[in-house]
Amino acid sequence: MQRPYNFSAGPAALPEEVLRQAAAEMLDWHGSGMSVMEMSHRGREFASIYEQAEADLRGLLAVPANFRILFMQGGGLAENAIVPMNLSRGGVVDVVVTGAWSQKSYKEAQRYAQARVAASNADDRHTRIPAPETWSLSPDASYVHVCTNETIHGVELHTLPDLAALGSKAPLVIDCSSHILSRAIDWSRVGLAFAGAQKNIGPAGLTLVFVRDDLLGHALPICPSAFDYKTVADNGSMYNTPPTYSIYIAGLVFQWLKAQREGAAAGVAAMEQRAIAKAGLLYGYLDGSEFYVTHVDPGSRSRMNIPFFLRDESLNDAFLAGAKERGLLQLKGHKSVGGMRASLYNAMPLAGVQALVAYMREFAARHG
Amino acid sequence: MQRPYNFSAGPAALPEEVLRQAAAEMLDWHGSGMSVMEMSHRGREFASIYEQAEADLRGLLAVPANFRILFMQGGGLAENAIVPMNLSRGGVVDVVVTGAWSQKSYKEAQRYAQARVAASNADDRHTRIPAPETWSLSPDASYVHVCTNETIHGVELHTLPDLAALGSKAPLVIDCSSHILSRAIDWSRVGLAFAGAQKNIGPAGLTLVFVRDDLLGHALPICPSAFDYKTVADNGSMYNTPPTYSIYIAGLVFQWLKAQREGAAAGVAAMEQRAIAKAGLLYGYLDGSEFYVTHVDPGSRSRMNIPFFLRDESLNDAFLAGAKERGLLQLKGHKSVGGMRASLYNAMPLAGVQALVAYMREFAARHG
Repeated sequence: MQRPYNFSAGPAALPEEVLRQAAAEMLDWHGSGMSVMEMSHRGREFASIYEQAEADLRGLLAVPANFRILFMQGGGLAENAIVPMNLSRGGVVDVVVTGAWSQKSYKEAQRYAQARVAASNADDRHTRIPAPETWSLSPDASYVHVCTNETIHGVELHTLPDLAALGSKAPLVIDCSSHILSRAIDWSRVGLAFAGAQKNIGPAGLTLVFVRDDLLGHALPICPSAFDYKTVADNGSMYNTPPTYSIYIAGLVFQWLKAQREGAAAGVAAMEQRAIAKAGLLYGYLDGSEFYVTHVDPGSRSRMNIPFFLRDESLNDAFLAGAKERGLLQLKGHKSVGGMRASLYNAMPLAGVQALVAYMREFAARHG
Repeated sequence: MQRPYNFSAGPAALPEEVLRQAAAEMLDWHGSGMSVMEMSHRGREFASIYEQAEADLRGLLAVPANFRILFMQGGGLAENAIVPMNLSRGGVVDVVVTGAWSQKSYKEAQRYAQARVAASNADDRHTRIPAPETWSLSPDASYVHVCTNETIHGVELHTLPDLAALGSKAPLVIDCSSHILSRAIDWSRVGLAFAGAQKNIGPAGLTLVFVRDDLLGHALPICPSAFDYKTVADNGSMYNTPPTYSIYIAGLVFQWLKAQREGAAAGVAAMEQRAIAKAGLLYGYLDGSEFYVTHVDPGSRSRMNIPFFLRDESLNDAFLAGAKERGLLQLKGHKSVGGMRASLYNAMPLAGVQALVAYMREFAARHG
C-alpha cells in the first residue's frame, strides 16, 4: 500500500526504508538484545552508532577536519541563545533579518550581545532576501547571523556570502535547519552552522552544530555547562545524556542519503538535483496558474518550503480536505502566513510533488 | 524468546510491551498514515498524544492543579542551570550534597546564585544521606535543592523533608530523575521537581519539570527563552519543537504503568511495592554474602540503583562476561565508583532480579 505523502514543515516525513528498519530493530538492535532506546550512551553498542552517524554526516557534507560536529538538544530556538552565549563575547552581532526565524534570532541575541539588524526584508514582507552586497556589516562584529532558509516565509539564500569580500572579518553563522543536506555547504565561508534535525533529517529533539575549532572556548560565564560548545566538544557530545534514539534515526537517514543516486550524482549532490527538480515542478505549475499564487521573489525561492495561496481563500478548507482524501497530508500554511505550504524535504519523492500538482490542477479545474 | 535483562542506569530498559507497540505503530500511527516522528507538533494527531501523556502522568503522580507539567530537553545537567536561572533571582540557594549529581547541581548553581552547601555526605563517601534535621538552611534561600536519588552513588532520600518544620520558608527543588514513578511524591512539600526521562521512564532527550504556579515568571534576564519555565508553560511546552517521539514513548510507558497491579495497588503504588520487593531481594542477598559487598548505609539505600562490589575485584571481568552470557546486561559500575551497579527501574521485572541473584550465587560458589 502506498503511504500518504506528508508535506509537513517539521517534524517532517522520513524515508519509508528508515522507518521500516527502525521498526524491525526496535526490540533487538543487531543481536544486542536491546532496543537502541535502552542502551547506555556510554556503552560499546551506542558508541558504534554514534561514531558511524558522525562519520557519515561528516562525509555527506564534506565537513573539514577543523570543524567539530556536536549533537545537542533544544532546536533552533535554543541555539538562538546558545550561539550568542558562546560566540558574542558580549560584543556586536550583525543579524540579517529575512523572516520569522531570523527575527527571533535577532531578538534573543539582544539578551547577550549588542545585536543589530544588518539588513532586513521586512519591507518586502519577507519575500526577497536582501543581496549580501547591501548588508550593512559592522567592522567589529563577533559574528554575522543569517538564516539560509526561512521555513515559514519560504525564502532561501542559495549562495553563502563571502564576508571577507564584503569587508567583514567576522565569522558567518548560518541557521540551516530547513535545508541541511539538500545542498552542499561552502565551509570556507562559514564559522558555525546549526540545524534542528526535525525538518530535513527527521526526529525532533536533536540539534546539529558544526563549529570551527577556533570559535570554541569563548563562552560567557553565564552559559550553562551543557550548552558550552567547548564542554560539549570535549566530551564528544556526551557531557549530558544525548538524545540517543534521535541520533540513531538520524544515522539511518544518513545511511539512506549515502545510497541515493541521480545519474552520476550521489548523496547530497543527488538530493540537490532532486530538490531542484521537485521545487521546479511546483513553482512551474504555480507560475502558470491563475488559480494559485506564490508571493516569493523568484531569486529567493526556497526549494524546501513553498508557501502558496488559492486566490479564492474561501476554498482553503475544501482544498485541504480533498488533499487529505488523496493522501496529501499537512499542507496547511503556517498561521502567521496563511494559505498553504508544501515542504519538499529530502524524504519527499518526486512522485509526491507530481501527485500534489495533479491534485492542484484537478481542484483548480473543478473550482476555477 | 526471553529478552535479556538490562540493568543499565540510563538510558535504561523499557517494558517489552511498549517497544512492541512502538514497532507496530512505526509506519502508521492509528490510521493517520504517519509515523509519530513525522507529525507536526502542532497537528491534531500529536496534540492528542501529548494531552493523553500529560493527563496520564498527572494522574499517576497525583500532581495537583497548581503545578504545571513541562516537557523540556537537556536532561538533569541542563536543569542544573535552568533551575537557578528561573528560581534563584540571583539570591541564596541551599544545596544538599549527597553524591555526584547534587555536587554538579551545586557547582552549576554558583554561576547564577549564591549557592551554598547546606549539608554534605562527602565525608561518608556519599554512602549516607544526612538527616534533614542536620541540614543548615539559610533564612533567605530562594530554594533548597536535593537530589532524592543519586544514580551513581546509590543513595535515596525516601521521605521528603518538611522544610517549613525545619525553619525554612524556601520551596524544595527535587531532582528525582532516577526514582520518578517508582514512589508517590508528597507535593505539599515540593516547589519544583525535575527528572530526565532516560532512567525510569525510557527515552533520552526528554526532561520532565513539575513547577508550582507561583514559581513561574521570575527568570533572570539571561535565561534563554526556550528554558524560561513561564514561556514553556504559556506555550504548552511547544515554544520550541518538543521531542515528539520521546513524548510518545513516555506516554506509552505511562499507559503501561496505569495497567500495572500488585494486589490492590495500581500504578505508582504497585511500582513502589515491586521496587521494595526487587531491591529487598538483592540487598538481602548482598547482606548475607561474604563474596560481595555494598557500602551504602541501610537507611539510605536506593531501591533503583544498587552499587555493589566483588571483594576480589580481579574477578570483575569474569563476572561481567558470565553475566552477559546469561542475558544480564549493562551491570558494570560507574567509572567513578567502580565495581558493579544494578539499576532496578520500573521496567525491570522481579524475575530479572531473581536471575541476577541466582547468577551471583552461582558465580560466588564457583570462585569463592
